[in-house]
Amino acid sequence: MITLSLIGIGTGNPDHVTGQAIRALNAADLILIPRKGEAKSDLADLRRQILSQVLTAPVPVADYDVPQRADQDDYLGAVNDWHDAIAQTWAETIAAHRPDAANVALMVWGDPSLYDSTLRIAARLPGLGVRVIPGITSLQALTAAHAIPLNTLAAPVTITTGRQLRDHGWPEGATTLAVMLDKGGAFTSIAAEDTEIWWGAYVGMPEETLIHGPLAEVSGHILATRARLRKEHGWIMDIYLLRRGGDV
Amino acid sequence: MITLSLIGIGTGNPDHVTGQAIRALNAADLILIPRKGEAKSDLADLRRQILSQVLTAPVPVADYDVPQRADQDDYLGAVNDWHDAIAQTWAETIAAHRPDAANVALMVWGDPSLYDSTLRIAARLPGLGVRVIPGITSLQALTAAHAIPLNTLAAPVTITTGRQLRDHGWPEGATTLAVMLDKGGAFTSIAAEDTEIWWGAYVGMPEETLIHGPLAEVSGHILATRARLRKEHGWIMDIYLLRRGGDV
Repeated sequence: MITLSLIGIGTGNPDHVTGQAIRALNAADLILIPRKGEAKSDLADLRRQILSQVLTAPVPVADYDVPQRADQDDYLGAVNDWHDAIAQTWAETIAAHRPDAANVALMVWGDPSLYDSTLRIAARLPGLGVRVIPGITSLQALTAAHAIPLNTLAAPVTITTGRQLRDHGWPEGATTLAVMLDKGGAFTSIAAEDTEIWWGAYVGMPEETLIHGPLAEVSGHILATRARLRKEHGWIMDIYLLRRGGDV
Repeated sequence: MITLSLIGIGTGNPDHVTGQAIRALNAADLILIPRKGEAKSDLADLRRQILSQVLTAPVPVADYDVPQRADQDDYLGAVNDWHDAIAQTWAETIAAHRPDAANVALMVWGDPSLYDSTLRIAARLPGLGVRVIPGITSLQALTAAHAIPLNTLAAPVTITTGRQLRDHGWPEGATTLAVMLDKGGAFTSIAAEDTEIWWGAYVGMPEETLIHGPLAEVSGHILATRARLRKEHGWIMDIYLLRRGGDV
């Protein structure tokens, strides 16, 4: 029986890594590292950089190529097929590199619980025991960088995606909305009045860029900055918090 | 000018502490530790235990007594007065122990962004620069312990409090609800049908206790377990995730 440890590594700052994550990486027989193509190769490099800092003895590392997701109309169907393919790739990579492994580790960007597929993919491999090590999320890196609380006093918070915000608008009754996985500018689909935004790209990384202000005033600045950064780096990850009414 | 570092330390597992937190603690001229009375003294002890593990050279530590919150009808008013009193206590404690300090550190349970007052209290001391170091939240410790994702596929999540759930019921349109700060059993105020619960007490600590199942079946078991654990330990911190409809 293989135990697969899904290890949250934070958002690009090797200093986000916890003692628990370091222990789990050192206890692994094999560490799987995804190869996602050139544009995001700094992310694979980051995983190797973390390993070089935290491993006290060599641990075998296996790269695997992440299958492409089909670009079909049925979004959830495409995602399901894609997850099947990734699970298959994991099984093959483990069999090829360490068929006798008892502890296999995967380094997960952010935290394995939040908009991450690793747990769903692991559930496709029935012979596998799964252990989760939490890591700092980009949402925490965002609020830390802006030095703001996520929630207003004793009030709820909704975490959602750019797609949800575009398709369904501002959730009824929400005062604070954290938006992740936005392909760009979903905040332009809502009324900007009385809305404040705290935006961040590459949060926690040396490239970290922050913008904060009334949405009506900074919306265009964020869009332009996002486009420029994306061109500069070849990829971008950003996240933002929106607040309506309600004091911090 | 004093920089106050608000350092998230996770939820009771010293292994939750990040490299960034360790660096910030070692860079402090003074570390403030709250004293909250006997019942929760294990929490103050935990802070000292973390310090004994991570400090590479001695750093002065000052205990301070956390003022009592007035038990008045005006909840938000009482909280505001209480925060004023705590800010005053911080200023006095710094002045008494290290009036020349440039870097003062506070170890915050979980993450300073989530249902934590430290940022709001710090904002009351205008001469202070504030820096936030993110830490693992109890919500992440809960989902890690149950090895479940927080969100269902591409869907939103609402984080709320026990008080909100009691007063306002299940938020319209929500499928996943994370409930924190519950004085006990707020989940009994909603219809249990078609609702699954993942509950945890002392998540991340040696006393960690988990219950999972359909809310209608495990609700009574959770209430009884919570009452027993609270009596046993003299205090309890618990958190839970509720899900309606929607696959994991």
